[in-house]
Amino acid sequence: MAYGFPDATQIAEVVRQKEVSAKSIVAASLARIADRNYKYNCFTNVIAETALAEAEKIDRSIAEGKDPGILAGVPFAVKNLFDVAGITTLAGAKINAENPPATRDATAVARLKKAGAILVGALNMDEYAYGFVTENSHYGPTRNPHNLNCVAGGSSGGSAAAVAAGLVPITLGSDTNGSIRVPAAFCGIFGLKPTYGRLSRSGAFLFAASFDHIGPFARSVRDLALIFDVLQGEDKSDPVCTKRPPEPCLPQLNQGIEGLRIAIADEYFAENAEPEVLAAVAKVALALNTTEIVTIPEPHRARAAAFIITASEGANLHLKNIKSRPQDFDIATRDRFIAGALIPTNWYIQAQRFRRWYRDRIREIFTNVDIIIAPTTPCAAPEIGQQKMVIAGEEMLVRPNLGLFTQPLSFIGLPIISVPVQRPGDLPLGVQIIGAPYKEALVLRVAKYLEDRGIVSAPVVQ
Amino acid sequence: MAYGFPDATQIAEVVRQKEVSAKSIVAASLARIADRNYKYNCFTNVIAETALAEAEKIDRSIAEGKDPGILAGVPFAVKNLFDVAGITTLAGAKINAENPPATRDATAVARLKKAGAILVGALNMDEYAYGFVTENSHYGPTRNPHNLNCVAGGSSGGSAAAVAAGLVPITLGSDTNGSIRVPAAFCGIFGLKPTYGRLSRSGAFLFAASFDHIGPFARSVRDLALIFDVLQGEDKSDPVCTKRPPEPCLPQLNQGIEGLRIAIADEYFAENAEPEVLAAVAKVALALNTTEIVTIPEPHRARAAAFIITASEGANLHLKNIKSRPQDFDIATRDRFIAGALIPTNWYIQAQRFRRWYRDRIREIFTNVDIIIAPTTPCAAPEIGQQKMVIAGEEMLVRPNLGLFTQPLSFIGLPIISVPVQRPGDLPLGVQIIGAPYKEALVLRVAKYLEDRGIVSAPVVQ
Repeated sequence: MAYGFPDATQIAEVVRQKEVSAKSIVAASLARIADRNYKYNCFTNVIAETALAEAEKIDRSIAEGKDPGILAGVPFAVKNLFDVAGITTLAGAKINAENPPATRDATAVARLKKAGAILVGALNMDEYAYGFVTENSHYGPTRNPHNLNCVAGGSSGGSAAAVAAGLVPITLGSDTNGSIRVPAAFCGIFGLKPTYGRLSRSGAFLFAASFDHIGPFARSVRDLALIFDVLQGEDKSDPVCTKRPPEPCLPQLNQGIEGLRIAIADEYFAENAEPEVLAAVAKVALALNTTEIVTIPEPHRARAAAFIITASEGANLHLKNIKSRPQDFDIATRDRFIAGALIPTNWYIQAQRFRRWYRDRIREIFTNVDIIIAPTTPCAAPEIGQQKMVIAGEEMLVRPNLGLFTQPLSFIGLPIISVPVQRPGDLPLGVQIIGAPYKEALVLRVAKYLEDRGIVSAPVVQ
Repeated sequence: MAYGFPDATQIAEVVRQKEVSAKSIVAASLARIADRNYKYNCFTNVIAETALAEAEKIDRSIAEGKDPGILAGVPFAVKNLFDVAGITTLAGAKINAENPPATRDATAVARLKKAGAILVGALNMDEYAYGFVTENSHYGPTRNPHNLNCVAGGSSGGSAAAVAAGLVPITLGSDTNGSIRVPAAFCGIFGLKPTYGRLSRSGAFLFAASFDHIGPFARSVRDLALIFDVLQGEDKSDPVCTKRPPEPCLPQLNQGIEGLRIAIADEYFAENAEPEVLAAVAKVALALNTTEIVTIPEPHRARAAAFIITASEGANLHLKNIKSRPQDFDIATRDRFIAGALIPTNWYIQAQRFRRWYRDRIREIFTNVDIIIAPTTPCAAPEIGQQKMVIAGEEMLVRPNLGLFTQPLSFIGLPIISVPVQRPGDLPLGVQIIGAPYKEALVLRVAKYLEDRGIVSAPVVQ
């Protein structure tokens, strides 16, 4: 088999059935990276030799009749804020390049490897995960595979573009205010931000600790479910990680949507988007046969609170360097951190107070509905370097506003998939499928239902 | 029986055995309040009629052979930040006097009443619980029953003085940075600050939400245990309250101290106290037969962090009034709130970050010891109006420094009893008995051991 664009599930299947060797799969992935990464600038590290050696091990263990793991031979890569033993964790920063190599893998990386997946590299991102565009001034911008003049989104831009461009079938990213969902939408692939605290963050370079999440990108919903299941489970090295027993989502994936109460977020989520974005949401709503609407209370305040908490916690994390060597930061990040360091504590505490109120209101909403749908971004991917955009007739800055619809939701830790709506000849768009805390299984079922009917899909950019 | 000075346990016993009626107990308490409160200024409300009616109900239910509750007929009073149905919750403030009466009792008040205790009033405190002296400019200072020229301590000064003066056998207070332990020490009685989150705070006017605790004052250790057991248990109206099942402490009270690893806090806790305070600690250590020492790391930083978090959270809570009507605040409180409102958020986040580090270090210490002893205050009660004091040869301000030894411990939610060391002819002093989280039972056992040997005691001031 030539290296086509199967999903991870299919790759693992053919590898386990010895139809294709893990080594040839990984070699094909490395070849495609070598051939095309220069166009997209997804990778900041490629791990070739070790990857091939690991693939050989998988092939040997299959030959010996052993279980090679559910992700046997599947190449994957991770946002460069995940620790990978032997390489330095950049977190998109020049400053971090001075650090010694990590001595062990992040928990998520270790779990994927243990399931047989093969790590082939680390991926570009906004510096310290603070941005929605991956226009990294140290490591260059990541480009959108659908249009090289456009951003891939951020901060997990490298992770999304690598999947969209077919360099690897699955990647990991992180999402604080939308950093998985925004690039998934712009690059036209699936991205899952799980419930806060449900997946271990151990070994991931945090940003705003109280709402950082890690999660997968993939080109099929079954892959998202499979990776999510592999990553689930308590981790003693992450005090925030839930002690709940894992609840496998893959077996529930094809249960359909009958009986689910699905509603469309209105007002704020309908008024601040371009028409094509609302058309994508309408297409998804029609397929889900819902006209129910639901009003999320105070989304503007939620977004303001998310901004304040992010800026405050981020500034605290980097204050020493901001004071002593500001010139070594990405200019976009530096200015945000300086602003964050000047916020009065009363704003921060008030934002946290609001957050508790808001979380309780959203929980009330989820006693009446199971799933909420909303746009992922207010528009399709803007151009690289573009400063301003017009959304619903109003001119606004690009960078702070791409998270318009993601920020008010991650802030309270809800599980969300951004599903990709393709528009042939035009850039793809994303729609958020939002569930109550710990309802990843429902969110995945709805995404699968849409994928099965061809409403959403993630074809690789050739 | 004339109303002498039995503890709550004894009162409930004689009431249940019909030796004395609940009504005569309550009437005697009310008479003593009427007779003496003017000297101490403990009460801001006295609830006479209802209390007598409730006492009659207890007597009737005893006559009918029903169970009147484990605290049958015991008069009690609460710091005026607890909601009491029918009276306005002052929280020591003139501003709050404008509020309508509370419509229901705080959970702790309701639980004591349900156990048969009779509420006779509400007690003076520092405005909004922000202080260690109860020199309240609106409601007057509470005076120390051992010396009327001296402070009772704060912020639960009324609660401590009312027990020391024999007005009621038990009271409730709250402790953010030492507000139960400091007045317990100054007034020479027992005070328990439980583990953070172990007792419901529902219906208590909070101060710095992330480290407010409620707890009892009493004149015997068995009373502390009894009240603690009555107050334990989940409370759905307080999201912070633990869901752990209650662990009754009273049955464990007489298990002694054999096998307990007890250590004395050194360095900071030995260097910043007056000689008589260290003598009190030495007396307790000798009785416990320990010479082990333990070093609490970074107590200065812990105290600084506690200051920052308290000032920040307190300022946030009261900001609207501080801006619109500063003249209506107590001057001491106002200046602290204004300062708190100006703290940069980075200090607050750094303080919270330090707090997690520090909590982990203290947890490590508690893998090697079971109990730590330390002084409660650096000196005995200062005089009312006194601005400065000399501690270990160094002149310092009174108000911010009375919490020198309590602040670095409550900050991380440890259960602590301040036990009273009496000095005939001189003011009493307190020693803190400190345990690991949820180890109230051990802390109570040690206090009981000391009480049984006459090392600590809480005789009523005649």
